[in-house]
Amino acid sequence: MLIPALSYAQDHTEMVKKIYDHQLTQSPVYENLRYLCKEIGPRLSGSPQAAAAVEYTRQLMMDYGFDTVYLQPVMVPHWVRGQKEITRVTNSDIKGAFELNSIALGNSVGTGAEGVHAEVIEVKSIEEVNKLGKAVAGKIVFYNGEMDPTKVNTFAAYGSAVVQRAYGASEAAKNGAKAVVIRSMTNRRDDIPHTGSLVYKPLMPKIPAVAISTNDADELSKLLAKQKGLKIYMETHCEMKEDILSYNVIGEIKGSQYPEEIITVGGHLDSWDVGEGAHDDGGGCMMSIEVGRTFIEMGIQPKRTLRVVMFMNEENGLRGGTEYARVAEEKGEKHIAALESDSGSFGPMGFSSMGKEEQRKKVQGWAKYFTPYHVWSFERVGSGADISPLESQGVFLMEMEPNPQKYFNYHHTNADTFEAVDKRELELGAATMTSMIYLIDQEGI
Amino acid sequence: MLIPALSYAQDHTEMVKKIYDHQLTQSPVYENLRYLCKEIGPRLSGSPQAAAAVEYTRQLMMDYGFDTVYLQPVMVPHWVRGQKEITRVTNSDIKGAFELNSIALGNSVGTGAEGVHAEVIEVKSIEEVNKLGKAVAGKIVFYNGEMDPTKVNTFAAYGSAVVQRAYGASEAAKNGAKAVVIRSMTNRRDDIPHTGSLVYKPLMPKIPAVAISTNDADELSKLLAKQKGLKIYMETHCEMKEDILSYNVIGEIKGSQYPEEIITVGGHLDSWDVGEGAHDDGGGCMMSIEVGRTFIEMGIQPKRTLRVVMFMNEENGLRGGTEYARVAEEKGEKHIAALESDSGSFGPMGFSSMGKEEQRKKVQGWAKYFTPYHVWSFERVGSGADISPLESQGVFLMEMEPNPQKYFNYHHTNADTFEAVDKRELELGAATMTSMIYLIDQEGI
Repeated sequence: MLIPALSYAQDHTEMVKKIYDHQLTQSPVYENLRYLCKEIGPRLSGSPQAAAAVEYTRQLMMDYGFDTVYLQPVMVPHWVRGQKEITRVTNSDIKGAFELNSIALGNSVGTGAEGVHAEVIEVKSIEEVNKLGKAVAGKIVFYNGEMDPTKVNTFAAYGSAVVQRAYGASEAAKNGAKAVVIRSMTNRRDDIPHTGSLVYKPLMPKIPAVAISTNDADELSKLLAKQKGLKIYMETHCEMKEDILSYNVIGEIKGSQYPEEIITVGGHLDSWDVGEGAHDDGGGCMMSIEVGRTFIEMGIQPKRTLRVVMFMNEENGLRGGTEYARVAEEKGEKHIAALESDSGSFGPMGFSSMGKEEQRKKVQGWAKYFTPYHVWSFERVGSGADISPLESQGVFLMEMEPNPQKYFNYHHTNADTFEAVDKRELELGAATMTSMIYLIDQEGI
Repeated sequence: MLIPALSYAQDHTEMVKKIYDHQLTQSPVYENLRYLCKEIGPRLSGSPQAAAAVEYTRQLMMDYGFDTVYLQPVMVPHWVRGQKEITRVTNSDIKGAFELNSIALGNSVGTGAEGVHAEVIEVKSIEEVNKLGKAVAGKIVFYNGEMDPTKVNTFAAYGSAVVQRAYGASEAAKNGAKAVVIRSMTNRRDDIPHTGSLVYKPLMPKIPAVAISTNDADELSKLLAKQKGLKIYMETHCEMKEDILSYNVIGEIKGSQYPEEIITVGGHLDSWDVGEGAHDDGGGCMMSIEVGRTFIEMGIQPKRTLRVVMFMNEENGLRGGTEYARVAEEKGEKHIAALESDSGSFGPMGFSSMGKEEQRKKVQGWAKYFTPYHVWSFERVGSGADISPLESQGVFLMEMEPNPQKYFNYHHTNADTFEAVDKRELELGAATMTSMIYLIDQEGI
């Protein structure tokens, strides 16, 4: 394919249309996601399934004819859940003893077979637990702060509430709490508990932590309002083992004009150990592979070097993203842009970005190419987690922004399965990412 | 509540935010839709369930304190499906005899117990059947034209393909065909047949018609390519009975300044007799009721008269919409605008409209109020079916435009159930409609 040496004022409308048409008629992306979800399944860092996902995506990119496909070694945390959690109210005046729908938080220590049995104290925030001080000593702290339903960007609501899950355990442990129970991170009222990682602060006692479903959180809160001294028995068998070797999977298509300029596009290959990691982030991975496959299939020779990266360990360590950036810096690589998809595979509505104002303006100038496909939002500032370590190298960062309303119906739960992803929406996402990378490659950034 | 006499340059940002916040935190819309879908169920025109839906929505609007709630009588077609359809390939060399997933088209005559057994001939369009002429005599015509997957607006793809379902039977009957089988109207490949209405041309023999699932259509097409003389046995027991009395349900809130200016908002209360009519159009009805309820609950006294209308019989006759417009004309009512929601309850992304260019420009000028809620599309020309008979009276017409990617996954099938509707997306839709009606009421159009 002949590339004009100068591309000033080139119009890309026709090529973008070809990319969308290709995805909507001939894409393997939905079948590839089915394979990842159904034949491999959930793929927590360090699990055999994570290794299978590494091999699967390596083979996919080789089969599609990427110029180079290789594995980038990275040591990852190896956390295991162990047998099913028990979280039981033991002494309700109204209901007697009964189970709550619960799931241990990722990275949490377990209670072991002896469990923890203690009085429950409810708070709505970390500030509140700090105010209580030593009043939480010996107790199980129940963090019941809700996601704000009026935030139309659900990720913003998540961002405010999730500090309870991330830091609540250590903040409670500081004053002697024995364990924590967290309200699940979702706007829905249902029976599904949501896991997700916690971070223990250094030098603080590590106490066990579980999330309970929002219906159970509401009920527990009601019972606590009526009865002092309500107790919970919690038993979890999770464990953090030794770090273990895993890999980022990298597929490369060499640039024809500026091969030293690298454009990275990716998602994270690991998931939690429940559900199938379909929206989080199987879809992001499969759409990223589509970017490279579509270039090859449609005979588009990139000017710059295109890297498709399956990042390992976003969920409970970000080791893959960190290592990718470290190696890039060590090798003196020149990344000009990086795009991630890690907000689900719902219908794409835009891109967030982080970089120089003129770079953001340039991307916003491309909106005209996307509005025919209902992709219209180019103002939000943001980036994906895995590519964020590239920020210090001055790389222009972007994340695809799908419709966010339903993401937290599925996030980190057994409901995040292949069936929750719509074929057309996934194909539109793949076309949207491919078109954006095409424009960056053609026009520079 | 004091309304300023002059509203020039009034900014509505704050009120719109209040409307959205109200819907996202205190709305009964999801529970109301659950009741309609689960306690009443599908509500084909003339069915007992349609009568129940009339009574339910009448009581709802009375309970919410609408100024007036009344029923507008309208005679509707009374079509009944009868016992389950049989559509069976009888002589496949490869598979022997086997059943296809089928559903009779609405308004279709039945084959009766004797059934129809005839050779199948495949076409992709009405043009093709007309070219074949007498070659279709005595045969079952299989219309296998697909919805175009590259049309991002799936309603446009539907519009092109659905002529086969609407007019295919009469066009085939013209040349002596005995029956027709239609590929279901969806972009998906699955086993779910989609019903929907057909229209018999006057003076043409009425022949039976069923839709089959897309998977079955693909398979039937493959078998036909390999085997001449493939036959189908079709047995349907549907029947068009005498027209029967039903009602549009109308709830009114009197305008304080221009009571003679009417703004109508509605959806259609009838549905097909499979599934629960959740997206089509239970959601549209429940969101429309929210417009009035929200005005009352938030103490917004409309300047103009607000009419919430549950139209009867959109699916197989449009009698309710037609009667509503006829009565409006007869009474000399002055409708200034009408808004319908009949494209599902997926996340709202905008409004289509039909009217004078300056009216459309005025609405487009309000886009700024909606973009914070991810509602951005105000350019498309269009209107809802039920309000379209008002066009000749010069009424400005609008339809809410939800994300269209998944609508035809559910449309006219047993999959169109309450579970297919997301609570937040429904609430956002109700807020979007309420805000638009609020702006039209405040600013005029």
